Amino acid sequence: MVQIASVFSMRHFFVLSLALNVSFILRSVFEREQGLNWLGFESEKDQVTQRTRLSVSSSLSSITTLAEAQDSGERIINLDHGDPTMYEKYWQQMGDKTTVVIPGWQYMSYFSDISNICWFLEPEFAKQVVRLHKVVGNAVTDGRHIVVGTGSSQLYLAALFALSPSDASEPISVVSQAPYYSSYPAMTDCLKSGLYKWAGEAHNFSKEGPYIELVTSPNNPDGTARHSVVNRNKGTLLHDLAYYWPQYTPISSPADHELMLFTVSKSTGHAGMRIGWAIVKDKEVAKRMTKFVELNTIGVSKDSQIRAAKVLKAVSDTYENVDDSEVGETFFDFSYHNMAERWKLLREAVEHSGMFSLPKFPPAFCTFFNQVSEPRPAFAWLKCEKDIEDCETFLKGHKILTRGGTHFGVGPKYVRISMLDRDENFIRFVKRLSTIRV
Amino acid sequence: MVQIASVFSMRHFFVLSLALNVSFILRSVFEREQGLNWLGFESEKDQVTQRTRLSVSSSLSSITTLAEAQDSGERIINLDHGDPTMYEKYWQQMGDKTTVVIPGWQYMSYFSDISNICWFLEPEFAKQVVRLHKVVGNAVTDGRHIVVGTGSSQLYLAALFALSPSDASEPISVVSQAPYYSSYPAMTDCLKSGLYKWAGEAHNFSKEGPYIELVTSPNNPDGTARHSVVNRNKGTLLHDLAYYWPQYTPISSPADHELMLFTVSKSTGHAGMRIGWAIVKDKEVAKRMTKFVELNTIGVSKDSQIRAAKVLKAVSDTYENVDDSEVGETFFDFSYHNMAERWKLLREAVEHSGMFSLPKFPPAFCTFFNQVSEPRPAFAWLKCEKDIEDCETFLKGHKILTRGGTHFGVGPKYVRISMLDRDENFIRFVKRLSTIRV
Repeated sequence: MVQIASVFSMRHFFVLSLALNVSFILRSVFEREQGLNWLGFESEKDQVTQRTRLSVSSSLSSITTLAEAQDSGERIINLDHGDPTMYEKYWQQMGDKTTVVIPGWQYMSYFSDISNICWFLEPEFAKQVVRLHKVVGNAVTDGRHIVVGTGSSQLYLAALFALSPSDASEPISVVSQAPYYSSYPAMTDCLKSGLYKWAGEAHNFSKEGPYIELVTSPNNPDGTARHSVVNRNKGTLLHDLAYYWPQYTPISSPADHELMLFTVSKSTGHAGMRIGWAIVKDKEVAKRMTKFVELNTIGVSKDSQIRAAKVLKAVSDTYENVDDSEVGETFFDFSYHNMAERWKLLREAVEHSGMFSLPKFPPAFCTFFNQVSEPRPAFAWLKCEKDIEDCETFLKGHKILTRGGTHFGVGPKYVRISMLDRDENFIRFVKRLSTIRV
Repeated sequence: MVQIASVFSMRHFFVLSLALNVSFILRSVFEREQGLNWLGFESEKDQVTQRTRLSVSSSLSSITTLAEAQDSGERIINLDHGDPTMYEKYWQQMGDKTTVVIPGWQYMSYFSDISNICWFLEPEFAKQVVRLHKVVGNAVTDGRHIVVGTGSSQLYLAALFALSPSDASEPISVVSQAPYYSSYPAMTDCLKSGLYKWAGEAHNFSKEGPYIELVTSPNNPDGTARHSVVNRNKGTLLHDLAYYWPQYTPISSPADHELMLFTVSKSTGHAGMRIGWAIVKDKEVAKRMTKFVELNTIGVSKDSQIRAAKVLKAVSDTYENVDDSEVGETFFDFSYHNMAERWKLLREAVEHSGMFSLPKFPPAFCTFFNQVSEPRPAFAWLKCEKDIEDCETFLKGHKILTRGGTHFGVGPKYVRISMLDRDENFIRFVKRLSTIRV
């Protein structure tokens, strides 16, 4: 304990917090200090750092963060939800580049583009979605239909509606490999629909006839790359690619599936906008999804679509804008470094504690960063070792709120922990975790 | 025909269009001209006009409108949807009073107020909702819970979810007096829910046991004031009060029901925001509605809530702001006059045609305007007379798109026509309607 306490001294957390801001200059100053090694400044990340520009303001702000992050062990640390507040700092650095100004008389109509199948889709938002996918290279958009939704949650339901046979004698089975996103069972079954029904773990699915298999890749909660596992005739695949962005996982190639879901909540961190989009190959499916959103909410907030368009544009602009002085730090560099450093901190804390384990991810080549890297998921899928049976309750005893494995279709030895909270909360969390003993 | 054509000459439409802008000065100039009588400048409305301030800009803009509104009979006039674009003009007049400015780093979290049952409700929006209801006097809010939704459509579904017994052996019946809002049957049954089921016309409902009765007042499509008609034990009432605002109907008293739905789409005309709210007496119902919105869309666009708050505030400010020079034309005066004059124009056109009829509404005292007035619904419920059996098809032959009575649970002799379109479209419509003969 004495040894651990010295590792997590005031001085070291000052250094950790500064390091979280991914500043190359600050690194060169502080790397010589004792104890910084476990922040994991490895050569792989430094390649990316060369593309990163210094932001003095964010470095200074972290000193304040640090002072607030001293952990008495009393304060509740809530990492149950994947609230992406980590990204606030980046958008603060960008100043007014993504400020939207909407006069009172604009965007009053229900309609955005009546020539489009998705008549409530703002053309500028659609344009920026396509552009960003081309910049990142993570999804095929040519010849596809885009359907906007109130978050990807609504589009998940719209997809189930669109993919379910309307004349079937019983609801179609919806399956997914465990551990699966904890909300999917409740979302699927909350209205006791006669069209579709949650049928749980895909590996156990043995029923004949049509089914929908939900493939979340990288997976929520455990961050693994996923493929369909049922592989039978009459199966329809629904791909949730909310986390298929370069800060979380190496981009191997543009995803090219029948129906793919994305969301700004996880790509740029704007959860409060409630904006998601589906990329849909089949025209009739796009029409039925549009019909669902019409019957569910008569379209999607225009204000948020306009704002999302501006945010996506800003991300693409940092890669494509010719006027380099205007660019600022690139979004995926910022978020890549934050995720990499958070994972390093977490793995160090887990090692120091000795009570937990984390998944290992195989490195892979990322076509976006043009280098080999390891996945850095948006959630940590933590396992309690030793004889701890209920990891959620165990951590709750240490005032760390997480979501237990049973919510995800597996056992209680696992918990899901958000990696996307604000620096202050995340640092407090790893500090507390590292000191946990039996 | 010759006589009618002369009534609708270029000169008269110039006058009509100007008059639509509700300018007292313009009235005094033009009222002496021949043919203006059918615009119906009656003493009742003039009382309200005294509270209305002149807007030169809007009067000028209508000259442009007029030039575009010349009707060759070829252009399709689409009044199928209740798109509230009539209100754009008012918000243009208000300039930057309701302009919102949202920096890129704001409102990123999923959460708005975790101390509230409805954790995604922006406190400023809730505050302005309560304030506006107090200003208008159209709903009781004290001691009630507010749940925000992606339009009132989502809240209708949330209410069905919240009011349905979760352990029933069969879905609860949802009934409403015909004619009822055309989307309700499809919204209710689109997922073939095991919780609730559309059971149609309330007057024909004879089944024993629990039911939900939907009361839309003023009613969409026919504008009548409504009360429950089933009146049995085990019934739960759901009040859709989207049109219970002073521009559409006299406000008799603050509505005081268990569960009431409102929306900015119809109150201020901002349909593109997709913002509605429910006023809920029972805490458990509010909790279940919140749960539904969580499972459906994980909350409601913060950007639109912020913008809606600003718009509602501006409306209340015109009545409560002490600095009178800052106020501008009051919102309900603007919209009252527009609706009154549109209804007058429509009744005149119907009379000139001789092919149609409209409902008559009994005058009543309005506590908001402090005078007796007639309802001026957001939709016209037009009946084809003579031997026209299918009014929708008949009007479609004249390139006027409406929604036929069968969508509303009644016969095809009726159609619903939006009264909230832009001046240009509305004027073109009444002009064309007035010339229709067998």
